[in-house]
Amino acid sequence: MSAASSLAGKNSSSVDEATAADPLVEIQPNVTSSTEFIVIETLRTTEESKEKDDSLSLEDVKSSVAWTKESSEASQNGEILKPEKAKKTVRLQGHENNVTENVILPKALPLKPCPSVGTNLEAFDLALRSIVGNHQENGESTGAAMMEEALERLKKSYVYFKGKPVGTFAAMDPNAEALNYNQVFVRDFVPTALACLMIEPAEPEIVKNFLLKTLHLQGWEKRIDNFTLGEGVMPASFKVLFNSHQQKETLVADFGGSAIGRVAPVDSGFWWIILLRSYTKCTRDYALAELPEVQRGMKLILNLCLSDGFDTFPTLLCADGCSMIDRRMGIYGYPIEIQSLFYFALRCARQMLKPERDGKELIERIDKRITALSYHIQKYYWLDFTQLNNIYRYKTEEYSHTAVNKFNVIPDSIPDWVFDFMPLRGGYLIGNVSPARMDFRWFLVGNCIAILSSLATPAQATAIMDLIEERWEDLIGEMPLKISYPALDGHEWRIVTGYDPKNTRWSYHNGGSWPGTSTHLIFNFLSFDYYLPMKN
Amino acid sequence: MSAASSLAGKNSSSVDEATAADPLVEIQPNVTSSTEFIVIETLRTTEESKEKDDSLSLEDVKSSVAWTKESSEASQNGEILKPEKAKKTVRLQGHENNVTENVILPKALPLKPCPSVGTNLEAFDLALRSIVGNHQENGESTGAAMMEEALERLKKSYVYFKGKPVGTFAAMDPNAEALNYNQVFVRDFVPTALACLMIEPAEPEIVKNFLLKTLHLQGWEKRIDNFTLGEGVMPASFKVLFNSHQQKETLVADFGGSAIGRVAPVDSGFWWIILLRSYTKCTRDYALAELPEVQRGMKLILNLCLSDGFDTFPTLLCADGCSMIDRRMGIYGYPIEIQSLFYFALRCARQMLKPERDGKELIERIDKRITALSYHIQKYYWLDFTQLNNIYRYKTEEYSHTAVNKFNVIPDSIPDWVFDFMPLRGGYLIGNVSPARMDFRWFLVGNCIAILSSLATPAQATAIMDLIEERWEDLIGEMPLKISYPALDGHEWRIVTGYDPKNTRWSYHNGGSWPGTSTHLIFNFLSFDYYLPMKN
Repeated sequence: MSAASSLAGKNSSSVDEATAADPLVEIQPNVTSSTEFIVIETLRTTEESKEKDDSLSLEDVKSSVAWTKESSEASQNGEILKPEKAKKTVRLQGHENNVTENVILPKALPLKPCPSVGTNLEAFDLALRSIVGNHQENGESTGAAMMEEALERLKKSYVYFKGKPVGTFAAMDPNAEALNYNQVFVRDFVPTALACLMIEPAEPEIVKNFLLKTLHLQGWEKRIDNFTLGEGVMPASFKVLFNSHQQKETLVADFGGSAIGRVAPVDSGFWWIILLRSYTKCTRDYALAELPEVQRGMKLILNLCLSDGFDTFPTLLCADGCSMIDRRMGIYGYPIEIQSLFYFALRCARQMLKPERDGKELIERIDKRITALSYHIQKYYWLDFTQLNNIYRYKTEEYSHTAVNKFNVIPDSIPDWVFDFMPLRGGYLIGNVSPARMDFRWFLVGNCIAILSSLATPAQATAIMDLIEERWEDLIGEMPLKISYPALDGHEWRIVTGYDPKNTRWSYHNGGSWPGTSTHLIFNFLSFDYYLPMKN
Repeated sequence: MSAASSLAGKNSSSVDEATAADPLVEIQPNVTSSTEFIVIETLRTTEESKEKDDSLSLEDVKSSVAWTKESSEASQNGEILKPEKAKKTVRLQGHENNVTENVILPKALPLKPCPSVGTNLEAFDLALRSIVGNHQENGESTGAAMMEEALERLKKSYVYFKGKPVGTFAAMDPNAEALNYNQVFVRDFVPTALACLMIEPAEPEIVKNFLLKTLHLQGWEKRIDNFTLGEGVMPASFKVLFNSHQQKETLVADFGGSAIGRVAPVDSGFWWIILLRSYTKCTRDYALAELPEVQRGMKLILNLCLSDGFDTFPTLLCADGCSMIDRRMGIYGYPIEIQSLFYFALRCARQMLKPERDGKELIERIDKRITALSYHIQKYYWLDFTQLNNIYRYKTEEYSHTAVNKFNVIPDSIPDWVFDFMPLRGGYLIGNVSPARMDFRWFLVGNCIAILSSLATPAQATAIMDLIEERWEDLIGEMPLKISYPALDGHEWRIVTGYDPKNTRWSYHNGGSWPGTSTHLIFNFLSFDYYLPMKN
């Protein structure tokens, strides 16, 4: 079965199921099932052309690519058809049945409850089941030796506290100086924890210990200078120290005060909630999540992200370096990674919270935020070919709530690389949306988590996977996965990163490759049962 | 009396008073009373020199300017001595008794309660009294005609609702299109309101009506898309509409949903609290602030800014365009204007809040935040000659709470203009401090409000006024006052503003001149009783 037809089948059925359960759920016809594309290109080579009147871009059209019924059928048959990379061109897609029109709710529509509220997290659960199932079925296959070596290395990285495993080292490189590699980082432990839950026999104990130990650390009074941090803040990392005076082990935690640049670990609490649900799902040990102290810890995290602020958006406002990219990298504001994790954590917590006492009121707030957040991300963060054209033709300086260009983005600020990068097929959630700013960069973790958490609509999820396929060389390359694309360089690197020598182009957080991120993409592939041109 | 001696006298006495009242208050010897400076310059002309080893900048010193006892005495006699502007130089100041060392608390010191908690807002009150007193004494002076014309224009700008004045128009330019000029902007009304409170006879009614009307608007359920805004959010602006169908006037308010780019009006609530206290102080009408609904409105605003988040700093995290500069201008993060207003509002609210019911707990939270915020700003936002040298020699990549370079700022990111701009005498609070980022730009409102609210220490306040005097041409120029300095240009303008054509260099929010800001500086001058080279 080809990718397109497999997806068409999958999405149609999932939409049908949802529709049957809830008549309010919008039906979103699948993009890949469409068979005809009419594509027109406009030439856009210089700065001057940017400044032309908007209507001109429509007048000056030149038909240059025809994405015909024929090529679309070829794609359905499994052949990979890459539309030629056009140099600085704006292509106008005339087809009615495109992703953007499917996924962006028309302004005038009355707001509907989010179909995902209260439902299961199918995509993520499917991936979890796939891995466990696959492992059980193919335990004796050719990959067994590699698996064994991996498990051995995994176990060597265990960190013990009073004889019990509580996490894994950030890195075990005998040649590297252990500046902070001897710590257990919350975000870094999650892929390891998922592995521990899915191996045969599973090792849930380390995950449980980790969850309880970090919960204990959350309870500490946290101070930086003389500022007391929010009660719910989870540590970025912790380490085990041996106190020779008292002859016992102690835990030392960092909540941002020791981190380079004092970055706030906003994602820690979200990962903790997500991991708690994964543990519960895999082990069926519901007792842990129901413990009063665990319920309380969850509520404290939720209070941090649901408390009222001055925000005009449902997205969560962050300082730079607040997540996996924990250095200045222009991800301040409303970065997609945090928004995806925020959404995922809300949905996980929604399933685990007991409606006793203040729980009911909190669940109501979660439901409202899930609805507002998914609407905002699906509508304003989505970029595909059609949407790129819309933004390119935006008028500016629109006052009042009727504005089309809600964030007053100046079309000139669309970077040139986007026009080369955007394929006809596919799309993605851009990095950030705030006043006069769209960060068009691709961020892997944000997009993958958006699929796994169902923050992206089914059509958007399909389009994101299509984009990865279309731009495999750019986004995946050799090995393992680029955290973002493209890298910041030149003036942009200097201004946006503050001359960070550790993050020159394509290094570390600036477009570098990260093994840990593979987990997220692999989960996506599994949740899609996706046909892939597996190059590596 | 010269500026220097006048200030020396003022500060000494205020320090003495404070010390007498509270033995914990630190004594800060006045910088301007020092008589000897030894100054050494190092040449720094190219990018390469930035990359030299830190120790080299100390080795390669060239003695080039001597700010001697003689010149210091001349300054005390009222003569303006401008040290020659050195082209791209780093000067090392050897004097022990400098501002930085006075105002930055040593790391090892135990934290002391903030001397300003619970005390009066002397600087601001002194300015209020000065204007009222001055007006009463000199009502018949030569400025009377100009005053009359100003009052006439002021009254023409009044906006009426059901026959009562409730604010003033944003602008009354018959030649300009009234895109949003027919609105009453909360932040813009404050200088007008202060004028109404200080004229003879005073017109407090419009201020009272404004305070109650905006309080009423705060009570609305505020939605943007399907996101419900925080209960305490105050409008950015409102306007009066005549509903011909119902034959009555209605109010229409904007909470950010109609604003260009959907910017959040974070400052509105702070200005509201500050104005409420000014009204109370001038009219002695204590009843208004004591009304239950007014107390409630104040508490709702405070809940927005004191609620726990993921922050590692006591400063308030903001999106870009959250205050007077209400467009994208690189003021995201922790802009000084919002921090000063936040601090000022906390101190005003501290005086007006009744400790009944939940008031007591709120007052405790305010006190803690005032202490943490003033420490953070005074320590990390302060820049003068010595501090510039410290930053220039920062090491990077320091892990743990013992880091000297707390925010991991890369010295290469210090812009060249700072080295030209920074005089030997004076200093200021920089625009923003966050991970790997110091925004070295000067922002007028933030610095002025920091003085009026006593967020700046007395020594810092003096140094800020000294800087204005030293760099009068740059910061004031012809008329009236530049909102920021320097303007963003070239690559920086493109990247930081997103190609905003309305904010090219020196226009609008990008270093433009704003009449409204004069109020803040005039208040500062009055609170200092400052000798000024009044060029205009």
